[in-house]
Amino acid sequence: MEIYHEIDAVQKKAMTLMREGKSIGFVPTMGYLHEGHVDLIKEARKENDFVILSIFVNPLQFGEGEDLDHYPRDEEHDKNISKENGVDLIFLPTKDTMYPNPLSIQMTVTRRADVLCGRSRPGHFEGVVTVLAKLFNICQPTRAYFGMKDAQQVAVVDALIQDYNFPVRLVPVPTVRESDGLAKSSRNVNLSKEERREAPAIQQGLQMGRQMVQEGIMDPQQVIEATREFLENETHGKIDYIELLSYPDLKPVERINQQVILAAAVYFERARLIDNVVFDQNGFISKG
Amino acid sequence: MEIYHEIDAVQKKAMTLMREGKSIGFVPTMGYLHEGHVDLIKEARKENDFVILSIFVNPLQFGEGEDLDHYPRDEEHDKNISKENGVDLIFLPTKDTMYPNPLSIQMTVTRRADVLCGRSRPGHFEGVVTVLAKLFNICQPTRAYFGMKDAQQVAVVDALIQDYNFPVRLVPVPTVRESDGLAKSSRNVNLSKEERREAPAIQQGLQMGRQMVQEGIMDPQQVIEATREFLENETHGKIDYIELLSYPDLKPVERINQQVILAAAVYFERARLIDNVVFDQNGFISKG
Repeated sequence: MEIYHEIDAVQKKAMTLMREGKSIGFVPTMGYLHEGHVDLIKEARKENDFVILSIFVNPLQFGEGEDLDHYPRDEEHDKNISKENGVDLIFLPTKDTMYPNPLSIQMTVTRRADVLCGRSRPGHFEGVVTVLAKLFNICQPTRAYFGMKDAQQVAVVDALIQDYNFPVRLVPVPTVRESDGLAKSSRNVNLSKEERREAPAIQQGLQMGRQMVQEGIMDPQQVIEATREFLENETHGKIDYIELLSYPDLKPVERINQQVILAAAVYFERARLIDNVVFDQNGFISKG
Repeated sequence: MEIYHEIDAVQKKAMTLMREGKSIGFVPTMGYLHEGHVDLIKEARKENDFVILSIFVNPLQFGEGEDLDHYPRDEEHDKNISKENGVDLIFLPTKDTMYPNPLSIQMTVTRRADVLCGRSRPGHFEGVVTVLAKLFNICQPTRAYFGMKDAQQVAVVDALIQDYNFPVRLVPVPTVRESDGLAKSSRNVNLSKEERREAPAIQQGLQMGRQMVQEGIMDPQQVIEATREFLENETHGKIDYIELLSYPDLKPVERINQQVILAAAVYFERARLIDNVVFDQNGFISKG
């Protein structure tokens, strides 16, 4: 496994790989790798000749009060995880390498950003698309891997690729779950015992909502309200949002007659958990 | 010479060329090709294995009152010129091919845009960088060719490539001139006989300004005023602007101690002419 710090070197390497006819799978991360990342790496490893993983804590996607300085880091751990799972190259740039000058050209996300988690994180997705546009041009991947746990991020990356014709295939990877259905998250350790027992109700509530559609209910409000009631009954958590939107457009729908996402965010005492399910107008799961 | 209309086909072609180890020279145009374009094509032809020329009248870079609908078109002429000068592939998309949906992610140019001609064309360079980001991803050029006649555009494209790490080399091509020094332009035909006789004074004035720097004058205001006086004496045109800025940063300078651009725009009765000269702190010409 190679570790590169410079942009030019990675671009040159990517060019060489392409000339050799090799496909490149790309997993962009902010480091501190967990099982979700391992899943992305495994998918990339399966489908590509060469796997690049980037580790860069992107200051642009942190808002005010979001603690960039205390974002956890563990390079040795990340290198070991990467090596064990077949990463070929880690791209590990500094902030000055990625942003040597203030940007002259800025990206604004005008759709898909101001719903779900994006509503409470203004500027977050601007930072995400900016760094990804750079990373796509640096690593020149054939395929790029993103977890459906953050389905809104997948939708915004999809827009980036479509709007600007990046020659990259976006591969959404299903959320990794505990045996009881709880989406895996580094935040789960902050749940109390009782909260941990209750937390699988989030996915259960979303699946119940999906089943309502499967049984012919087309009114999004009815689905949202039933899911809300379920979560209020089954957990002590405080619901941040439950939303049902078209996917990947993330627009409100009057009737469920297309692919949609049903997503929830719930505050527990010391952790905010998110989860979602994406399904079509018949309630059949599409992704995630 | 091949003519492609679809994005996928061009991307596939570009991939194939890269895999064959071939370099791609790219000349983006809005069609109605003239000698300036021919010069760009010739440069691209000299330095690359394969030459792609795009013809797309980009609605995004036209402002209000700038007449998109009456922009001149002549596809047959363009195809002939391209073929004669060794273009391998013309990319000729429709508006719907390039912009099938409203953009979810928009680019804003926050530097280098609000000076020179950009001052009177708000939104123009947003349109330019948006379409170029797309075209770079579609045509995947090794080198992209732009005329120094529009030095501000070159500076903005330089920012696009630097900020987003596009794996493209920007090649600025010197302005093509008549034998008396007047920069070639499709607008020159709109000059009266007397105006045509006077018009070379623009380049003469700029060169005079450059010589002042060569002789040790470091104060930009002194250079600008002398150039203004020269143009006012030598032409009946109305000066739109004379500016001296750092290049390619396009920032005002207090002293000339770096590469700078001295640029002018002059209104004649039925034509607005622009020209520039780029030189270093010793007055030596760098480009253009």
